[in-house]
This record gives sequence, structure tokens and C-alpha cells, in this order.
Amino acid sequence: MAMQRMGPLPPGSTIGILGSGQLGRMLAMAAARLGLKCHIYADAPGPAFDVADRTTEGAYGDWTALEAFAKRVQAVTYEFENVPEATALFLAKHVPVRPGAKALAVAQDRLTEKAFITSLGIAVAPYHAVDTAADIAAGLKAFGAPGILKTRRLGYDGKGQVSVAPGDDFGAAFAELGGTPSVLEQRLAFVREISVLVCRSETGAIVTYDIPQNTHQGGILRRSVVPAPLEDEVALAAKVMAGQIAEALLYVGLLAVEMFDLGPRAPEGQRLLVNEIAPRVHNSGHWTLDACPVSQFENHMRAVAMWPLGSGERHSDAEMRNLIGEEALAWRGLAAEQDLCVHFYGKNDPREGRKMGHVTRLFPREMTPAPVAKAKRAPKS
Amino acid sequence: MAMQRMGPLPPGSTIGILGSGQLGRMLAMAAARLGLKCHIYADAPGPAFDVADRTTEGAYGDWTALEAFAKRVQAVTYEFENVPEATALFLAKHVPVRPGAKALAVAQDRLTEKAFITSLGIAVAPYHAVDTAADIAAGLKAFGAPGILKTRRLGYDGKGQVSVAPGDDFGAAFAELGGTPSVLEQRLAFVREISVLVCRSETGAIVTYDIPQNTHQGGILRRSVVPAPLEDEVALAAKVMAGQIAEALLYVGLLAVEMFDLGPRAPEGQRLLVNEIAPRVHNSGHWTLDACPVSQFENHMRAVAMWPLGSGERHSDAEMRNLIGEEALAWRGLAAEQDLCVHFYGKNDPREGRKMGHVTRLFPREMTPAPVAKAKRAPKS
Repeated sequence: MAMQRMGPLPPGSTIGILGSGQLGRMLAMAAARLGLKCHIYADAPGPAFDVADRTTEGAYGDWTALEAFAKRVQAVTYEFENVPEATALFLAKHVPVRPGAKALAVAQDRLTEKAFITSLGIAVAPYHAVDTAADIAAGLKAFGAPGILKTRRLGYDGKGQVSVAPGDDFGAAFAELGGTPSVLEQRLAFVREISVLVCRSETGAIVTYDIPQNTHQGGILRRSVVPAPLEDEVALAAKVMAGQIAEALLYVGLLAVEMFDLGPRAPEGQRLLVNEIAPRVHNSGHWTLDACPVSQFENHMRAVAMWPLGSGERHSDAEMRNLIGEEALAWRGLAAEQDLCVHFYGKNDPREGRKMGHVTRLFPREMTPAPVAKAKRAPKS
Repeated sequence: MAMQRMGPLPPGSTIGILGSGQLGRMLAMAAARLGLKCHIYADAPGPAFDVADRTTEGAYGDWTALEAFAKRVQAVTYEFENVPEATALFLAKHVPVRPGAKALAVAQDRLTEKAFITSLGIAVAPYHAVDTAADIAAGLKAFGAPGILKTRRLGYDGKGQVSVAPGDDFGAAFAELGGTPSVLEQRLAFVREISVLVCRSETGAIVTYDIPQNTHQGGILRRSVVPAPLEDEVALAAKVMAGQIAEALLYVGLLAVEMFDLGPRAPEGQRLLVNEIAPRVHNSGHWTLDACPVSQFENHMRAVAMWPLGSGERHSDAEMRNLIGEEALAWRGLAAEQDLCVHFYGKNDPREGRKMGHVTRLFPREMTPAPVAKAKRAPKS
């Protein structure tokens, strides 16, 4: 029942993970490298169940099952940001929950999140709260540009989003999202999407990974290439922003901060806008498994177990591609590609839009920052 | 009951592993990267149980339990070479066992192994069969040099070995090994110990990793450094020898071939002598987890599941050190060493001589073969 343990959890300790998806699976495997056991708690079995020491199938509101779970583990973390805040708060009465309930509360509501980030002096895309269809018209007018309407809660992989432009049927658009409280964001002409993977320890140490450039399709991440072709000072600014956010949340673990890069011609202080944060390991950091001595998954587990963090250094450049839905049926051919790092999550049903695995190709690390043009070369694959 | 499956086992299939030690643990984790599940069968729980989808605690002669196990898996492999041959043969009636019973039979008996290797035209250290204490005297006389007496069966990590020299009490030495059938090997003045990790697929494809130089202490591996400072033609000869052995055994999976390098002044054809083979993944290949796109563990599982093999290419040079017994108590300090890849096996009791974990440090790959002198530099650590 110790509420707070002062030292790092030794090998042999058990970490609880809420959620049974592929992120939980890769977290459990990273924990295993450190000699830590994992106990997965989820409302349905999933890929993480295959590699865990213990599993519990239970509802996130089943206090009896949650209490039994809490008593078996020395710390709890989670692999998805929609863990109910009440669940995190309940568990925290028994065992440290990292990252804590504050990060969940902020990240679960797009409006709260944007207000929080703005309060730190960090720029986000112009936005407008939407509680009625009329708010959409007002927002678009304020932007003078088309927008994307997103539910405040429970969106992921492009779900819970719809594009809107002047002249559209706003009532229909709002109804498409179920008429739930939403946020209208201005659609931006960005040069690229990037993300910063930042890990913070309980003692306040902060490490960042080098920055991937991300390509999405239909709201789903398709590809991350590291390093993104950013000028040194821009990359540094992005890392500082991510560190600021982690620090302001007193965050413990890995935090992903997605950003838009508006390019060198953007107004002063408006080049990098935060798109959203994810209080967990992130798809755009999967390349760290193969390109870094210490992956995002391991650094997250190090933070959760109060170990010293690894540096985030990479030994190779990398290109990660997601395998979505039926793309995973090509596993034989992918496995035959020379020196390709293949990862499958053990899911059976290759449904449309479902993340089934990913592949990473490594390249010798460029010791000098890549010029912008060079990064557009097609990686050999 | 299909005795032979023609295609690779798709992600979601289950591989059975005999043995619950750290090698089984790392095999199961490698399988998980490929989306394969593992079912561990062992006579006692161990580190592999923590990361497996299913586990069975059962004796290696419990045919009922073994049959139930065989029916739940699509292929079987093992993580230790002392699996009883009868167990492998029994399982093979139900499901493919890879590597097969022949490799086990050869590797389980030092005398059979040496005769087999010699029959391929590959050199081994001079040896002499020992069934009585008098055989020791005869062997030493034939060598004209001191020797090491080793039991034919069940030795590992320096256990089941004793040094003998002319004038010793041979009766006592033989009794120390329990008077069991043994082999006397000539003690050699080698320049270095190396090992070749070779993986062969069922279709006969063979890949090798670059060669580590190994340092033992008290019969236990302490350190492997890759690449060993070998001339190109010597490294190639070593790889060819290992490939020949794998081919002659129609081996499927990863085979480790330990060799003595007697140095450039050795007689023609006597520079490399095979010390012993291990029909499994090997401690001297642990560096491949961090320095290669496809590790020895993954390549073994690829072979067992009939996937295409990865190339064995490394992206970094590496130094692997074992954490033996109480050395693992220094885990906090090791975790704090910048960019060190730490691996703990989740064992609780740091008994003397017990392998508790290992650490690997990566170095930028030297694009040109390292001269012999250069390899002796102390790696920064």
C-alpha cells in the first residue's frame, strides 16, 4: 500500500499496463528487456496479452478487479489516452500511476489541451469551440479559411473528424459528429508534419529523440522518416516546446507532441504549431525500436519504474512504414526484403484501417544535418 | 497432425519452445516481433514464462503433457541442447521439431560430435576417448601436452570439466567427473576464441553473422567483441566451416560453432579448430539483438517458422558483457550508463555463476577490416 516508492523498481518487479493493444505489447516487451514483468489490464484481450506475465480482462469501472490488479503491481501505466480519469484516480490511491491523471485530463479534451498549450506561450493552430452548428460559421469567419471539425473527446486515427468550408451544411457536419462538444481548427498549409517524442523522469530529467517527419493518409499515420529535414535551430525549438509541455504537466513517461511546420516563410514565432499531444508512446516513435539503443518504449518503462532514462540517441537514420489492414497480408514479401526490420502485432483480422504491424529500414546515420532537398530522395526499399 | 507444412507459418501461429531459461525468453520476444505466439514447455518455471502466451510445467518424459503441447503448436524448437532425444523424437511424430533430433544427438555427446566434425574434414583439438583412468595417461602421452577432461554428456558453462597434466592423480580426476564416459582434449595455446553464428533454413539458405571474439573466465563466457580482429580470409574460412557443419546436419535454425584461433603461425589447415557446437542460439550472439536488423533469436525463429532468413548484417560494432551472479546487483549503475543496452532476464536469485543479464555497447561500424592491433583498444565504457 506504499503510495510512493523512493527508489527505482528492481528487475523482477511488476508494472501494470492499462490497455491490450500493440502499444501495450511493445511496452511489455521493452519492460522484459529490463527484467520487469508486466500485468495487462484491459476490457478485452489484445496483442499485449500474448507477451505479458499476467493478464486481467475487466471493465475500466470494475473497482474490485482494479483493486486486485493494483495490489499485484508496483506501478501502473497505460497505452491509450482514453483511460477514464476515474480509473486512473482510483488506481492512484493504491499504487503510483505514471503519467498521472493530470496528463490524461488535459489530453482527453481537445479544447482543454489547446487552452493549456496556449497558456504556456506555445502556438497552436487557430481554433474555435463548437457547441452548436452556428459556432462553426463563426469560427470559419474568424479564420477566413476552411477548417476541420473535431470532437473534443475520444477521437483517434482520423475518427471523429470532418472537414468544413464556408457554404457547407454546418448542421449536417455537426450532426455527423453526433452533435457532441467539438473544436473547429483552421486548416493550415503546412510544409510538413513532425512529432517530438519526449521522455521525462520523476526527478525532472528530460530526453528527446530526434524528430521524425510524418505522413498521414485519411488521418492515419503512414510513414515516419528520421531525421526530418529541419534546420538545427528549428529542431531545437521543437524539442524545447515539447520539454516545456512535459515539464508543465509534471509528466512522467513518454509524451508525443505532434506539430505542424509552416516552413521558413511563416511569421515569427508561428513556424511550429502544436497539433496535439498524446500522453503515451506513439506510432511516430516506432522507429526507435530499431534505430536507438534505448527505444521510446524502454524509456517510458524506465520512467515508470523510476530508472535513469536512456539518452534518446540514435545510431541509424530510419524510415518506418505502417502496415494497415490488408497490407499486412504481404508479410511473406516483407520478411524477404533484405535487412528490413519487420514487426507484426499478432492481430488476426486485417480490417480496413487497422494497424497490423510496421516495418523499419535503417540507413547509416548522416553525421551532418541533411539539406531539405536531400531528405526527399526515395529510400531504397 | 500434418507432419510437414510447406509454407511459412503466418503471424498468429504458435511456436513451442522446450526450456524456460533466458534463451527461451529472448526467443519468445523475437517471435513476438514477428507476430508469432510462443508456448513454453519446461520442467520448471523460468524467465521465459514471463513473456510467453502459454506455458506448461511438465517433465520431459511426460508423454501426455507433451502430446497436449504438440497439438497446440505449429512447430517446436528448444533453447538448450540437453533436451532428451526421446522427447524430440516423440514430439516430431506430431509436429515439426527444428532443429531436428540429429543435431541433438550429435551435440549431446562430445565424442560423437568430434568424430562427426572430423568426418567433414574440419579440424578439432586432438582428443582421446576416456572410459577408464588409464585412458587419461594414454591420451596425455599421445598429445605430449596437458589436457582437459570433459564428460561426454551434460556439461555446460565449464561444469563437468577438470584439467589434467602428466603426474596428476588420474583416478581422482576421473572420479571428480563421476567416472562417466569422458573425452580428454589437448590444452591448446590459442590466440583467441571465436564463434560463428550460422543460421540455416529448411530450404538450405545459409546466413552467418560477423564473428565475435569471446573471452571466458572459469568456463563461463564473459565478453564478446564484434568484429574479432581476423584477416578476411580467416573469417571467411570460419564461416564456411560453420556452414558446412550446418549443411551436414541438415540443420534448421541457429547453430553456434565455437572455435580456437591458433593464429597466423599455426600449421597449414590447423589455424582454426572447432571447440564445440551448440544446436541453439548462443550467448556469444546476444550482441545481435542490438547491433543487427535481424538478431540471432529472430533468425532462429524465422527458420523454425519457415520464413525467409534475415541477412545477419550488422549496423554497428558491439561489445557484449555478461552479468554473472552478483554483478547484476549493479543494475542501477548500468542503467545510468549513457547509451548502454541493458538486458535483464528477470531472475530473482543472483547465485554465483548464474547468468542474470547482459549489456551491449554499440560503436559506429568500421567500414574497413580492423587491423589486429587496433582491436585491442579498450572500448570506452
